[in-house]
Amino acid sequence: MNFHDLTRQLQKDNGSKIVLLVADGLGGLPLTPGGKTELETAKTPNLDALAKAGVLGLSTPVIPGITPGSGPGHLGLFGYDPLEYNIGRGVLEALGIDFELGDKDVAIRGNFCSLDDKGDISDRRAGRISSDIAAKLCEKLDKITIPGVEVFVRHVKEYRLVIVFRGDGLEGDVADTDPQKTGVPPLEPHARSAGSKKTAEVATAFLKQAREVLKGDFPANFLTLRGIDCKPVIPTFKEVYGVRPAAIAVYPMYRGLARLVSMDILDAGQTLDDQCERLKSSWNDYDFFFMHFKYTDSTGEDGNFDAKVKRIEELDAAIPKITALKPDVLIVTGDHSTPAKMKSHSFHPVPVLLSSDMVRTDACESFGEASCLSGGLGQFQAKYLMSFALAHAGRFEKYGA
Amino acid sequence: MNFHDLTRQLQKDNGSKIVLLVADGLGGLPLTPGGKTELETAKTPNLDALAKAGVLGLSTPVIPGITPGSGPGHLGLFGYDPLEYNIGRGVLEALGIDFELGDKDVAIRGNFCSLDDKGDISDRRAGRISSDIAAKLCEKLDKITIPGVEVFVRHVKEYRLVIVFRGDGLEGDVADTDPQKTGVPPLEPHARSAGSKKTAEVATAFLKQAREVLKGDFPANFLTLRGIDCKPVIPTFKEVYGVRPAAIAVYPMYRGLARLVSMDILDAGQTLDDQCERLKSSWNDYDFFFMHFKYTDSTGEDGNFDAKVKRIEELDAAIPKITALKPDVLIVTGDHSTPAKMKSHSFHPVPVLLSSDMVRTDACESFGEASCLSGGLGQFQAKYLMSFALAHAGRFEKYGA
Repeated sequence: MNFHDLTRQLQKDNGSKIVLLVADGLGGLPLTPGGKTELETAKTPNLDALAKAGVLGLSTPVIPGITPGSGPGHLGLFGYDPLEYNIGRGVLEALGIDFELGDKDVAIRGNFCSLDDKGDISDRRAGRISSDIAAKLCEKLDKITIPGVEVFVRHVKEYRLVIVFRGDGLEGDVADTDPQKTGVPPLEPHARSAGSKKTAEVATAFLKQAREVLKGDFPANFLTLRGIDCKPVIPTFKEVYGVRPAAIAVYPMYRGLARLVSMDILDAGQTLDDQCERLKSSWNDYDFFFMHFKYTDSTGEDGNFDAKVKRIEELDAAIPKITALKPDVLIVTGDHSTPAKMKSHSFHPVPVLLSSDMVRTDACESFGEASCLSGGLGQFQAKYLMSFALAHAGRFEKYGA
Repeated sequence: MNFHDLTRQLQKDNGSKIVLLVADGLGGLPLTPGGKTELETAKTPNLDALAKAGVLGLSTPVIPGITPGSGPGHLGLFGYDPLEYNIGRGVLEALGIDFELGDKDVAIRGNFCSLDDKGDISDRRAGRISSDIAAKLCEKLDKITIPGVEVFVRHVKEYRLVIVFRGDGLEGDVADTDPQKTGVPPLEPHARSAGSKKTAEVATAFLKQAREVLKGDFPANFLTLRGIDCKPVIPTFKEVYGVRPAAIAVYPMYRGLARLVSMDILDAGQTLDDQCERLKSSWNDYDFFFMHFKYTDSTGEDGNFDAKVKRIEELDAAIPKITALKPDVLIVTGDHSTPAKMKSHSFHPVPVLLSSDMVRTDACESFGEASCLSGGLGQFQAKYLMSFALAHAGRFEKYGA
């Protein structure tokens, strides 16, 4: 029996409330050997108090040694095995601009490119044209019509865009048209499975019209298609866990990931304070709240250790607003580590703090990587975090008699 | 290669002896934050001495966060994945009254119920009739005969009974006949798979006769059938591990679970002393002994922290009788946690103590949950306990060259 078959069978609704607070890229590394990580450096009296009374652990987002992107990182936290549920690049790009994907959609990343007189690619990024210009070109492309299919073209940033085809019988297994080099023409859309033949035909028809539309717009006189993929079929959070879930996330990408598992998306405002207000005002309408805090990741990506420390302290300051609502289970963790030292996501396990009356506590006195290593939850696969959450909230029946 | 394929391949008989002492529901929780658990509160000089010289760990009965019943809890300890081997309710009920199930048996939980003049259920528990009366009704039902099938009817307690059909071609996928409400007639036995059609027919024939037999016995003038299931097909303990196994358990349920994996069932008497005597007198006849101690669970279920502490101390006092026999490996653990605080089984990991000359010991000085968290065996799935046991007993060949 797989994990979700088990949670489907055992779920029960006792009215308890769970808050999952995700500080993106929370885990870190010391800058110097023997030093402290960002989380250990930050002054976090509220998190430390929760850590002392609660239970800590370390989660492995995928399997040991694997660095996840935001998609697999969050799917893991939501209890969906990231090796089983794969999110295509086109889908992720669409989620990132808040495009609401439906079940009949194929999403594609587009890059504007420059073609020379012979039709060969002379620049794969169209001279990195400005967003202003590219946005207008996207509006022109959005007017393209193809019989039997809806076409959406949305600008992302600079030379990047998203194309969505909506219609029956569109599968996503079509190869990229970007040849990954200059001096050759773009590739034709090629279906890698029989079920994706219609998608390749639609893409071919789209590119034919796009060539006409853009012919006077050098350096952006054409585009390539990449990461062509369908919206993945994922069982809903409510169905597998029996909770009413809501997402309170400022950034579109994370709203999109929550939408993939059919969480309700609430207006999160712009700040952590706004998010806490939304949590409070929605408290009676949901059982499970996913709150997302982006800046621990972005400061880590910037390689700015001190700024990440400050962002963690900002998060700590918000904790009393959450605990004031008396959730039955509060979890604070990340979707992956983003050590400022590495300026990137990393494979290191992620600190987890679980606060609940039902914990078997451990000897940990503060929230940090070293402390989590001796935590009572041990080291576990991120997909089991939901299992811990529901168990501590009393939302599982006993398995077997 | 799955776990048992590996143990089949690597097993060797070096004549060593293993004792698995299961204190049911051993794991616990402190009553107050920062306090001690039942096991940590109990004075356990003998277990502490074993803990100091041996190695500790924590086992997860099923997967993180899942609370097991006795069936899955014990299958896990015996090394059978509880998500792979599912024990039906009817089977467990039969095991609980020491009914020796065979491979052609379908076991069913029965409830006496009351039917009104129209044939609708007016009481799903037949007014909770006394065991005296119900036992006599079971004797009458036991006389029912159905061509080609053996029928056994055994009383359990009050309105509860067990029915077993024995014959060729009986599968267990038949829906309950209990409609779960009053004012409606019982449901007809309905086969949910083609292979279970014969079982449904036998059940229909049985119920038709039972209606006649019980017609004058209001309030117990009929019965409903629930938890219809076959004895699961489980490879024998001896075959997968290469040991001669024996169970020394006072309670029928645990003898039954041991019988499912084809252990020999020894007369355990009534007390822990009796069990230790049996262990001694059978020492030369077996390689593996499963000893079961019930009262750590029942006191936990009662929510009686102090009584559970006393039962753990009683268990500790018996340890010298076991170590006097010089087992090569002695394991003391539970099948799950039953914190007095929760008055129920729980999902918390279970303390494990392994004593053997072959241990790589850890820094643990006593047997308790906090101590086990830093134990050398780490946190592991219960099904690997058998692997640890056989390894420390020198009963595995090297894997590969």
